[in-house]
Amino acid sequence: MVWLDASGPSSETVMSTRIRLARNISSIPFIARAREDQLNVVMRTVTSSASGAKGLERSKFLRMADLSVLDRAFLVERHLISPDFSNESPNRGILVGEDETESVVINEEDHLRIQVICSGEQITEAWERANALDDHLEETLEYCFSPDLGYLTSCPTNVGTGLRASVLVHLPALVLTKQIRKVIRGVAQVGLAVRGFYGEGSEVVGNFFQISNQITLGQSENETLEGLERVVRQVLGHEEKARELLLNDARVQVEDKVWRAYGTLSNCRVVTSQEIVNLTSAVRLGVAMGFPGLPSLKTINELLVLTQPAHLQVSAGREMDSTERNVLRAGEVRKRLGLSPVED
Amino acid sequence: MVWLDASGPSSETVMSTRIRLARNISSIPFIARAREDQLNVVMRTVTSSASGAKGLERSKFLRMADLSVLDRAFLVERHLISPDFSNESPNRGILVGEDETESVVINEEDHLRIQVICSGEQITEAWERANALDDHLEETLEYCFSPDLGYLTSCPTNVGTGLRASVLVHLPALVLTKQIRKVIRGVAQVGLAVRGFYGEGSEVVGNFFQISNQITLGQSENETLEGLERVVRQVLGHEEKARELLLNDARVQVEDKVWRAYGTLSNCRVVTSQEIVNLTSAVRLGVAMGFPGLPSLKTINELLVLTQPAHLQVSAGREMDSTERNVLRAGEVRKRLGLSPVED
Repeated sequence: MVWLDASGPSSETVMSTRIRLARNISSIPFIARAREDQLNVVMRTVTSSASGAKGLERSKFLRMADLSVLDRAFLVERHLISPDFSNESPNRGILVGEDETESVVINEEDHLRIQVICSGEQITEAWERANALDDHLEETLEYCFSPDLGYLTSCPTNVGTGLRASVLVHLPALVLTKQIRKVIRGVAQVGLAVRGFYGEGSEVVGNFFQISNQITLGQSENETLEGLERVVRQVLGHEEKARELLLNDARVQVEDKVWRAYGTLSNCRVVTSQEIVNLTSAVRLGVAMGFPGLPSLKTINELLVLTQPAHLQVSAGREMDSTERNVLRAGEVRKRLGLSPVED
Repeated sequence: MVWLDASGPSSETVMSTRIRLARNISSIPFIARAREDQLNVVMRTVTSSASGAKGLERSKFLRMADLSVLDRAFLVERHLISPDFSNESPNRGILVGEDETESVVINEEDHLRIQVICSGEQITEAWERANALDDHLEETLEYCFSPDLGYLTSCPTNVGTGLRASVLVHLPALVLTKQIRKVIRGVAQVGLAVRGFYGEGSEVVGNFFQISNQITLGQSENETLEGLERVVRQVLGHEEKARELLLNDARVQVEDKVWRAYGTLSNCRVVTSQEIVNLTSAVRLGVAMGFPGLPSLKTINELLVLTQPAHLQVSAGREMDSTERNVLRAGEVRKRLGLSPVED
């Protein structure tokens, strides 16, 4: 997962950028009305069209029907499929590039959804990659396209560009200084969506937020992307100012918060996924603020994603209940922090 | 302070043993009715009588009137004087032996109070030292003594032996397994007092408890000491069983609690005295349970006592408000844990 490696621009605040294009094939009914043999045609033609594409040279095709509940949860945790992607049909699946930057989800809500995830703030780069993959597929596939409306999709909210561009940002200073709701309101007012991420439910809990476009109709891809980029820049500016405020007014309190979180991460013996989100969030703030002696952003990103329930179980090669996972997770954290386990 | 060094028996559970003997000089009225010139006689005769005694060879005499509020708070934190020992009179003070095992408080509630503090469970040793010092003083002083009642004291609760023997025990497993109230009730039923120590107020908060005799009249010193020793042994036995229970039933949860406390202690940048009590209590439990890799009991005892407010300020050579102390304390903790400060 290249998107985890914190190599992209603004990685200290932007975890990842994601582009998704919803497409359907003109000769075949939409998912809700398609027969299994038609879905099978979609699956075969899309996989064969995509196989030579850039980023998918050494791809894997994963059929949902072949995957266990755990395997699917694993893909959800890697942001490759949505939790709703069921395996009722034998003709559903995902084609994933070797480094997981490019992928194509087949026969979920639409016939195909092109996905690109990049590290940091890389709206342009992610878009160019998705667009190139889209062009490649269009050489052999004929999309459902209306000259008036644009690309037609199962859900009317995607009609037009079929584009969903989203940026996963970490805004701890705006949360700490209690400015986050104001910022979220501002973002919503210009037509973008902000939702809590890695939090409990959809409440504004935790410090990770996903900012994405809502409009797909009546504006070009470039307008959408430029609008998102502009707003993300503004939000990053607000976060930056809030961090300066904290450094000036409450440096030692922030240091305390950051180092306590690190102390807990590096010493706990039982820990939940939710607590990992909160602890890594605090440590991430410390790294962003330039406090020396903390783990790298790459390690922090990996802690957040790779210690999730399905990842732990896939890595252990068996299912485990949450009690067992919470113990294993604590050991995994110490390993990833490069601390030799003290006593196991 | 030898009593802090965790060298005594059962030091993993018993922090210290303390003996106090209340005495008054027969030719001089009790404190409440004595004139200053009489108090002055007490001060001079007691200090001169005590100066050659074992444990007081290289003693210091500290006059309360010469001490600042901070200096007195420092002595309270070291368990040498009580918080109520005011400096109204110029003839009050404390004679302290070099290693602070022996001391004599002069003109507080009684003319003199012989004090001995030892590390761990050393009721007999502490008693023998106090008794030897008492014998030494009695060679030159004539005590207020009634053949019927025994030693006479300002407060009737001390009449008889004038002896208060107390043992400071750490009972985290009894607290965690919710058996502590039952144990305290049992101790109270046999006529001993138990009070929370290093907690907030006199509530049963925190895991440190002081067990002491209440009766001084109608029983000999040996009966008092044997009674206390028997009950302390029983309480330690209960604590031991509770620890075994925890190890068998909840080992990883206890490890988690212990290591999180250590992680916070070793990483925090702001910390209160009260939190130090709770954190060191958890770490102490880990040491007692034999978890490897934790600090020594001596270090843990020192963290508890030497990071108290007055100690921090005396060590820094100036008064500080609590905000400043909480920052300094966190740095002091890291130094004592042998961790080089990461960034200051």
